[in-house]
Amino acid sequence: MKKSFLFSIFIVLFSAFRAEGKQIEISKYARFETRFVVPVKANPFNVAFSAVFSQRNRHVPVDGFYAGDGQWAIRFMPDMEGEWTYTTTSDLPELNGKKGKFTCVAAKPGAHGPVRVAKLTRFQYDDGTDYMPFGTTCYVWNHQGTQLEEQTLQTLAVSPFNKLRMCVFPKDYIYNRNDPEHYVFVKNEDGSFDYTRFDIAYFERQEALLDRLADLGIEADIILFHPYDRWGFSKMPREVDERYLKYYIARISSFANVWWSFANEYDLMSAKTEADFDFYFKLTQARDPYGHLRSIHNCNRFFDHAKPYVTHVSIQSGSLTRVSEWLRTYEKPIVVDECGYEGNISKDWGNKTAIEMIHRTIIGFLWGGYVGHGETYDTGDDILWWSKGGILRGDSPAMIAFFRNYLEKNEFSFAKFYPSGELGPDMREGIRGKNGYLCYIGNVQPAYRYVVLPAGRWRAELVDVINGTVTDLGVYEGSFRLQLPGTPYLVVGFYKN
Amino acid sequence: MKKSFLFSIFIVLFSAFRAEGKQIEISKYARFETRFVVPVKANPFNVAFSAVFSQRNRHVPVDGFYAGDGQWAIRFMPDMEGEWTYTTTSDLPELNGKKGKFTCVAAKPGAHGPVRVAKLTRFQYDDGTDYMPFGTTCYVWNHQGTQLEEQTLQTLAVSPFNKLRMCVFPKDYIYNRNDPEHYVFVKNEDGSFDYTRFDIAYFERQEALLDRLADLGIEADIILFHPYDRWGFSKMPREVDERYLKYYIARISSFANVWWSFANEYDLMSAKTEADFDFYFKLTQARDPYGHLRSIHNCNRFFDHAKPYVTHVSIQSGSLTRVSEWLRTYEKPIVVDECGYEGNISKDWGNKTAIEMIHRTIIGFLWGGYVGHGETYDTGDDILWWSKGGILRGDSPAMIAFFRNYLEKNEFSFAKFYPSGELGPDMREGIRGKNGYLCYIGNVQPAYRYVVLPAGRWRAELVDVINGTVTDLGVYEGSFRLQLPGTPYLVVGFYKN
Repeated sequence: MKKSFLFSIFIVLFSAFRAEGKQIEISKYARFETRFVVPVKANPFNVAFSAVFSQRNRHVPVDGFYAGDGQWAIRFMPDMEGEWTYTTTSDLPELNGKKGKFTCVAAKPGAHGPVRVAKLTRFQYDDGTDYMPFGTTCYVWNHQGTQLEEQTLQTLAVSPFNKLRMCVFPKDYIYNRNDPEHYVFVKNEDGSFDYTRFDIAYFERQEALLDRLADLGIEADIILFHPYDRWGFSKMPREVDERYLKYYIARISSFANVWWSFANEYDLMSAKTEADFDFYFKLTQARDPYGHLRSIHNCNRFFDHAKPYVTHVSIQSGSLTRVSEWLRTYEKPIVVDECGYEGNISKDWGNKTAIEMIHRTIIGFLWGGYVGHGETYDTGDDILWWSKGGILRGDSPAMIAFFRNYLEKNEFSFAKFYPSGELGPDMREGIRGKNGYLCYIGNVQPAYRYVVLPAGRWRAELVDVINGTVTDLGVYEGSFRLQLPGTPYLVVGFYKN
Repeated sequence: MKKSFLFSIFIVLFSAFRAEGKQIEISKYARFETRFVVPVKANPFNVAFSAVFSQRNRHVPVDGFYAGDGQWAIRFMPDMEGEWTYTTTSDLPELNGKKGKFTCVAAKPGAHGPVRVAKLTRFQYDDGTDYMPFGTTCYVWNHQGTQLEEQTLQTLAVSPFNKLRMCVFPKDYIYNRNDPEHYVFVKNEDGSFDYTRFDIAYFERQEALLDRLADLGIEADIILFHPYDRWGFSKMPREVDERYLKYYIARISSFANVWWSFANEYDLMSAKTEADFDFYFKLTQARDPYGHLRSIHNCNRFFDHAKPYVTHVSIQSGSLTRVSEWLRTYEKPIVVDECGYEGNISKDWGNKTAIEMIHRTIIGFLWGGYVGHGETYDTGDDILWWSKGGILRGDSPAMIAFFRNYLEKNEFSFAKFYPSGELGPDMREGIRGKNGYLCYIGNVQPAYRYVVLPAGRWRAELVDVINGTVTDLGVYEGSFRLQLPGTPYLVVGFYKN
């Protein structure tokens, strides 16, 4: 069990026994939680319970939730230091009109708050810290039992990834046939699910894992619906979906590191229409007090990402050079969460080489977007990183680690796409950051390029992401022929000298 | 000087001095030529001169031409053995009503006649021999002077190529700034071209080179117009174009190994419209007695290859998996004459790796078409194979040689495209030949594929085109998991056991 979870329990006990007026301190972007013990009549999940958290003239409505064992809970993630008060509202008199307060103190090191869209097409944390997503996918790592989950967390701890795509519901697909220990809903005696009652154990387990990810600096891109299903979760009635989303948001929106992904491959969900997803987006936007990022991921057909409640564009595509076109189309951050997986399985989406994976990754980033990693090496144990987590195989993570470090060190967080031709007749499009340009040579082997640089003297360097090396190419100005090694997959950087 | 050219001279002399009734023998698909010496008045190129060659009830109208030195010539390529007679027609009385005959005897070894479209989307020679084009491009090798031209021919002699794209007019483009020794037209005293008079020396030189190609078994895909021009040949008036085409056809259509390519990058020819090219196609179809193949090559925008006088589809594109779609669209052979060049120059069309070149080549062939090679290594001497010929550099020719040999040995000339899924859930589309299937694994690294084969027992083999190896994978039947090495760029063949 994890320290954050223990800490929550501590808060619960503390809240339950504290005298009015005692000073409670919560660090910025951490989670305040208070609980109320009330005798349970009827279905406790049907009780209306909410609160408003206030700081002077600012009032933030927040949903509470039934937390099991006769306890109702309210959670809140403060994003401003200073005193916060709250008052509850409920149709249960015992839960109505409860008041309390706490003081929000400085954020702990490493706590930067939720990730936000910044300057239309880029990201930063709520506190203004730069953020570039370097994601990976372990769809149902969180449904595999403690042993494998711990291994996944250990692997993530030394990986370059700061975003993880993962599903609320279990997955029924190749290499994904096992049942989880817990489901979102409890079961009826006949084995069917009781869509009116949530499984508290499921949520407590998931929350502990989300906090573990937060400790590793990893954003949880939570997939709320997906089509790979034998249990019925992909075709629940809308009122059940609504109930599920409200409960999920009430419990989990106070976690700073969550993003809402409304579906994986939404267009394969035969029981849903775009209007259903519109409804989930709008419901979530209304219920989530923190405005976590909202997106939806396609298989073949893009969702209309221009809709105002879609915060950024989540894409499955192998056509990475289209990123700049999508930037123009949507004027939102473009995250190609799925561009293919490094692996060796029979399906072509899951047997890309490491070089192809990093090639696609570089293109996506240098055409102005972000690209997620995935891995599907089948080594015979039915545990593939992409689905269950475990151990990370293949060569692309090390390349991505180098690339992430290079982009961060050279401050490309707020880089902008520049069009082909800006750096001379044969230099391709790429990104212009705070300190300079990055241009990808690509899967071609020029021995030279004709370059035309803006005014001033520029230092050129050759970045070999595959081999993890940076080579100085000297200082240039104006129009010149840049000699290159005549090998593929190289990036050229130009920095103000 | 070449033997065929000497042979032509011999025929001229022989024709000039022979008595009526002497037995002349011409082998099938070789060239009969007869000349008539007549005093030149006015512009000899304006004289109307033609003949009809007849074999019993079959009559073939053929244009004659002014051949210089007061000689008018008629050439004819017989495609049937037996006796042929001819009668000339002219507005010059001395050239009118001339009669003669010759006997067409069996073709010489290696002479198969012009290449024809066969079974809608494939090719064969006129005599029924299989033909699969494995082309390359040396746009203006034929304008470089004897020394370099001889080197090009020596290189071609040991290359895997059996088709060569080459231009009638010189080229003005990067790495192509030199003037040729001869032009199609003679010059006026002021240095401008006299569009009413052709340069006999130009044609005799070109014809000798075409015969040299024929000796090497290479089809000359002759590019009749192109946009890279500083001399004005890309924007001559239509009547000059017509005069030029008629003269060219009259001289050269009797060469068995010529194809007509009406343009390179027709859509970059700003002075021409589609209607102009329609006119050239139709004119050529009417004037060419042998029905040589006719195509037109694009830069960005495809010509309407569905037009009935377009015999096959000549394409510039790097999207090789679209070949099967183009097959469905046009129901004609698909020849991707330009898919990029192996090389190292600054332009991305000219710096592909050998692996990318062979990858594209394999896709094009296995999606049911044909792909041409090109090479643009700049080694500092301004002689790039793609433009001037010379020495062939890079690794793809050896891979193409292996691939050609493999396809021919296993009789894939009349292969047909089969759709994805035909060989099981994860096996891609490919070709089905006389003896079996070829399926490309591609730029992915599966460790296995699920295969479902048609009834019977099949021998599987792994074809590594890059390393030139074939590995037996054993005998299979029905539905099975095929173990693979987990490395990219492999082809799998299945043959009836």
